Amino acid sequence: MDLVGLFESAENKRTYSAGETIFNEGDERDMMYVVLEGNITIQLHGKSINTIKPGEIFGEMALISASTRSASAVASTDCVLVPVDESQFIFMVQQTPYFALHVMRELVHKIRNMSEMM
Amino acid sequence: MDLVGLFESAENKRTYSAGETIFNEGDERDMMYVVLEGNITIQLHGKSINTIKPGEIFGEMALISASTRSASAVASTDCVLVPVDESQFIFMVQQTPYFALHVMRELVHKIRNMSEMM
Repeated sequence: MDLVGLFESAENKRTYSAGETIFNEGDERDMMYVVLEGNITIQLHGKSINTIKPGEIFGEMALISASTRSASAVASTDCVLVPVDESQFIFMVQQTPYFALHVMRELVHKIRNMSEMM
Repeated sequence: MDLVGLFESAENKRTYSAGETIFNEGDERDMMYVVLEGNITIQLHGKSINTIKPGEIFGEMALISASTRSASAVASTDCVLVPVDESQFIFMVQQTPYFALHVMRELVHKIRNMSEMM
């Protein structure tokens, strides 16, 4: 099962148009997002650092570490996202080890990308 | 409960003397480690990038992403460690959501540290 399969029946999907901002660097955290359709660009100090695609997540860092947004997220195409709040996130980690491992893999992927850039 | 509490009764503890290498950058992955006593220095290309203390983990990235070691780990004092292999790790994630969240928090902490360095 992938994350699209896990979340495609969610009732709280949100749609964003190309160019819309989902959150800005420094914002108070509230949600992480699962991408069902479309692409998201992650920007740090106005510079694109990553593209998030269907089946991937973003915004999870602020949720995990209880801090403000470390980067901005902008829809680079029309998108369908599922927001996941902190209590849902903890529930998912508890009930769906696949989800927990997926989040860990994405975090490690980010660290390796940053290592290569350093 | 912290990780020391979770692992202090493990029967497979390993002791290392100050200066001993636990693993080298580029090694095949096998285990992650929970630190019960002592400090570990993480080195990238021979440069210290992090200190791991009791109650913290290291070596989890290679376990999560099925890749070789991205950095070296050296005991900076005498240490007591608990090695955790891949099947134990997945079992822990499944059975102990606290452990999964702890691993995620440590990964996010690494990302924020690297962001600040960039």
